[in-house]
Amino acid sequence: MEPAAIKAIFFDVFGTVVDWRSSIIREAEQLGRGLGVVKDWPAFADDWRAGYHAGMRRVNAGLDDWKTVDQIHRECLEALCEQYGITGLSEPQLATFNCAWHRLDPWPDAVDGLKRLKAGYVIAPLSNGNMALLTNLSKFAGLPWDCVLSSELVGRYKPDPKVYQAAATMLGLEPGEVLMVAAHGSDLRGATAGGLGTAYVSRPDELGPQRPYAPEDSREFDFHAIDFKNLADQLGRSVP
Amino acid sequence: MEPAAIKAIFFDVFGTVVDWRSSIIREAEQLGRGLGVVKDWPAFADDWRAGYHAGMRRVNAGLDDWKTVDQIHRECLEALCEQYGITGLSEPQLATFNCAWHRLDPWPDAVDGLKRLKAGYVIAPLSNGNMALLTNLSKFAGLPWDCVLSSELVGRYKPDPKVYQAAATMLGLEPGEVLMVAAHGSDLRGATAGGLGTAYVSRPDELGPQRPYAPEDSREFDFHAIDFKNLADQLGRSVP
Repeated sequence: MEPAAIKAIFFDVFGTVVDWRSSIIREAEQLGRGLGVVKDWPAFADDWRAGYHAGMRRVNAGLDDWKTVDQIHRECLEALCEQYGITGLSEPQLATFNCAWHRLDPWPDAVDGLKRLKAGYVIAPLSNGNMALLTNLSKFAGLPWDCVLSSELVGRYKPDPKVYQAAATMLGLEPGEVLMVAAHGSDLRGATAGGLGTAYVSRPDELGPQRPYAPEDSREFDFHAIDFKNLADQLGRSVP
Repeated sequence: MEPAAIKAIFFDVFGTVVDWRSSIIREAEQLGRGLGVVKDWPAFADDWRAGYHAGMRRVNAGLDDWKTVDQIHRECLEALCEQYGITGLSEPQLATFNCAWHRLDPWPDAVDGLKRLKAGYVIAPLSNGNMALLTNLSKFAGLPWDCVLSSELVGRYKPDPKVYQAAATMLGLEPGEVLMVAAHGSDLRGATAGGLGTAYVSRPDELGPQRPYAPEDSREFDFHAIDFKNLADQLGRSVP
């Protein structure tokens, strides 16, 4: 894919734009202090994230009707509270904690990199997060999108190729005019199957210090960047 | 509706945020100069706008399957070219001119007013324009939305109350937590029927100098403002 062919850039969000793990651990620790309990909060965050993946797979496999990510997170949270022995949370506390996923910090390069890319392209998230989650998260993190796109608008979850194609169509574009950016090979392979260009951004800290980072093969995708500023450099979007 | 109840503000776009008429006349005049023809371009703009309304009414009445506003504009443009005797336009010229609706200037107060309101609320367009149109228009005009919402996402056109309700639900909100802003009473009456709060903004220049301005009755809606800065004043969002 030549940079001149690109009219819009779609971004995966969890892990690619925002550091979900540190943010969820921080909110869980705060909750634990309020309740006076100590748990393995990093493991809790990882389990919550795993439940999200499992919930989406069930929807795409036809085992469940459509559920938003907020709903999947909530069902998973209730199961994890039982599993970890976290009791005494009121309904408002559960609802607020579930929305920790609406309050995730961006990676340090993300906002500046997005601003540079926005000067040359339409930029939008294309995330499995639902519209409410993505809108609140983007406001919290100061993400300067041109619009917000979500799998919720398609009724299928990434990496189903239909999601990428439908999002391009919604912006009046051909798949080949759109670059998908993600830190995860599976997401980019779905985009490739949908006809989009791909940019892999390495996020070696996404899964925390205990898990060795296994980067993707740089030859598999159209671009391979170490962060969003580096991607802007490669696309010729100079520092303003 | 008390300002403290508001969590998000939805905005009608054509006529409320942007001055569609002057912008379309300007692009039509440019086209005419290129073709070496002189037509009544203000009347052409008004007829194009009228065709848009008629096309949406046909969809809501079940006479047509769903058509995007880009499609409605294009069908109407072809009919108007015939009616006005405008010939010799190539397919790329027709496509570019049809996207004049993606390049509309904001009213002078709009961007500053939206920035003030964005500091206190989630702000989004809720327009009958399709997602591609709204996204391109917002980028052209520098509109600082938190996300872009369109009737296209619901499959019905405003003022069907379902559109307003579905947009609120998509942001995880109750209708009563959302304020709809428009320069048109019919839009606000649809929002009221959907359970949203309403703010009427007077745009006396929308229909041009020849047509007398008939403002709505200020008592019918929750707020009545002369522009977006005035609305921000009324909602307690001070000048930054």
